[in-house]
Amino acid sequence: MKNFKITVIGGGTGSFVVLRGLKNYPVDLTAIINVTDSGGSTGRLRSEFGFLPIGDLRQCFAALADDSDDTLIKLLTYRFDRGRGLRGHNLGNLILTGLRDLYGSEPRALEKASSIFKITGRVLPVSLSRATLGAIYENGKKVLGEHAIDQPEFGGGLQVKGVFLKPEIKVYKGAVNAIINCDMIVLGPGDIYTSTIPCLLVGGVKTAIKKSKAKICCVVNLMNRYSQTHNFKVSDYRREIEKYTGRRVDVVVVNTSKIPKRVMSSYLSEKATIPDDDLRNEGGLTVVRGDFARRSAIAKASGDSLSRSFFRHDEDKLARALIKILL
Amino acid sequence: MKNFKITVIGGGTGSFVVLRGLKNYPVDLTAIINVTDSGGSTGRLRSEFGFLPIGDLRQCFAALADDSDDTLIKLLTYRFDRGRGLRGHNLGNLILTGLRDLYGSEPRALEKASSIFKITGRVLPVSLSRATLGAIYENGKKVLGEHAIDQPEFGGGLQVKGVFLKPEIKVYKGAVNAIINCDMIVLGPGDIYTSTIPCLLVGGVKTAIKKSKAKICCVVNLMNRYSQTHNFKVSDYRREIEKYTGRRVDVVVVNTSKIPKRVMSSYLSEKATIPDDDLRNEGGLTVVRGDFARRSAIAKASGDSLSRSFFRHDEDKLARALIKILL
Repeated sequence: MKNFKITVIGGGTGSFVVLRGLKNYPVDLTAIINVTDSGGSTGRLRSEFGFLPIGDLRQCFAALADDSDDTLIKLLTYRFDRGRGLRGHNLGNLILTGLRDLYGSEPRALEKASSIFKITGRVLPVSLSRATLGAIYENGKKVLGEHAIDQPEFGGGLQVKGVFLKPEIKVYKGAVNAIINCDMIVLGPGDIYTSTIPCLLVGGVKTAIKKSKAKICCVVNLMNRYSQTHNFKVSDYRREIEKYTGRRVDVVVVNTSKIPKRVMSSYLSEKATIPDDDLRNEGGLTVVRGDFARRSAIAKASGDSLSRSFFRHDEDKLARALIKILL
Repeated sequence: MKNFKITVIGGGTGSFVVLRGLKNYPVDLTAIINVTDSGGSTGRLRSEFGFLPIGDLRQCFAALADDSDDTLIKLLTYRFDRGRGLRGHNLGNLILTGLRDLYGSEPRALEKASSIFKITGRVLPVSLSRATLGAIYENGKKVLGEHAIDQPEFGGGLQVKGVFLKPEIKVYKGAVNAIINCDMIVLGPGDIYTSTIPCLLVGGVKTAIKKSKAKICCVVNLMNRYSQTHNFKVSDYRREIEKYTGRRVDVVVVNTSKIPKRVMSSYLSEKATIPDDDLRNEGGLTVVRGDFARRSAIAKASGDSLSRSFFRHDEDKLARALIKILL
């Protein structure tokens, strides 16, 4: 099999699933991670140390770490549940913070971490500068901070008219290379406004994506989130990706398997809905449909104290679908 | 060369130097570490997590970690100098605490850490129970807590009449094996009352040392500490080791090189003195004399925020002397 180059853009639990699945295939993997995380352990470290936010970087490290023995992954995702000042901190975040302090730059720290945690592929920040994410909702309301945008009380049920970075920041050159020189760019699944698009907003990313001959592949979320993508259709995900990449999406991956009943109730309480599949294969667009969901429900994202969706993509089903697109 | 088994008993900066030197020789190394540390980052973690104190364990890990690339050692000894609740914490301590929490016991956590940090040899706690160290001075005064005993304001200038553990604790069986089945047991250098003897006080250690056919080797400190060993002679170090091991010391290693003048002034201000060399080779005792000191002065122990002695043993000179004893 040709050694395909795949670049995953985003961060968060969506990228985690894509990366964990793809790392089992002989592909050259790069994860490009947003730098706008402002919540929890990451937010505290970001404001106290002034480094790039590392929660999403750490999560992608956990996805790509050597799992022949799970110690490294457990270490990266361990969260202190007690200890004055330690409670809520993630050990992986502290290790990355220490390395950043020791080695003076994010790329060097990540290189060191890659060797310690025996990473398959590479994890790169989309930029070496920090920025705050902002959103403007359909009612004109403006919210600042990735963490705030994710809260239903701010924009729940409202359409996001636009997102922006403050200040404007420039792309890291290592990320540009990974975008231009790859066979496929995977966007999604995950929180489109707080994980995927914050990467696309960084100055130079759009240009790099336009230059790239890679297939653009958009993996549509299994469920819409009331706080971000209320009542989205599949075409809405595609439209937003095309709006922020400035390029046509080549492939859309849509799950067709049904959500288990026992899981649906918790989604109803969160006002989450299933994206209506309204796309047709037209004008060069390929829609890949199939069962890409996990059979077993999971309560928490690995290493995350927030409880998240119960209905998740299956890492291997999704990886197989992505590899098939390239073959 | 025969694969000699050497067991180093103690912890702290003294054991650090011995271990770093010996790990470059083809010997089977075991470090047995005291469990009474009560100060700094270790003390905070000990009281908040209820695990064994890990500062000395971590320091020995740093000594034995793979240093073909120094990242692992830097990571283990990194100390946070900012961050609410993080300042003063040592990253190596946090990693060991996380592993202890994840794996449910110190031996399993240390085994995992050994593989992550590519340890040469083994690091074992002397006991799986925690204890507080106490000291009684010649004036009858009693002080509790290893950290307190180390402060000149408590016992400075006074002879220590005796030290004890509260409560009495039992030796870890892995440590017993390492004591019985070795060719040499190295005691010192380092703080005799707060690093070395706290190991000897643990129930079962004395019996194991008596059973062992290993040579007992006592490395005498370069300088006496006002807070612990004020005006000690070389014979005082030997006497205290014999008192707490219940066995004759076979070899005493004494430095004969002179302390550099530029370093002496800081020792004078600390009321530190040079141990008077009053031993003769008699009754089976071997006294190994030579230049075992480092040429360059160092300001701080690796990974330690406390500034320590400037006059230190040279890891390689000391290791060569110890190996020679076995040949």
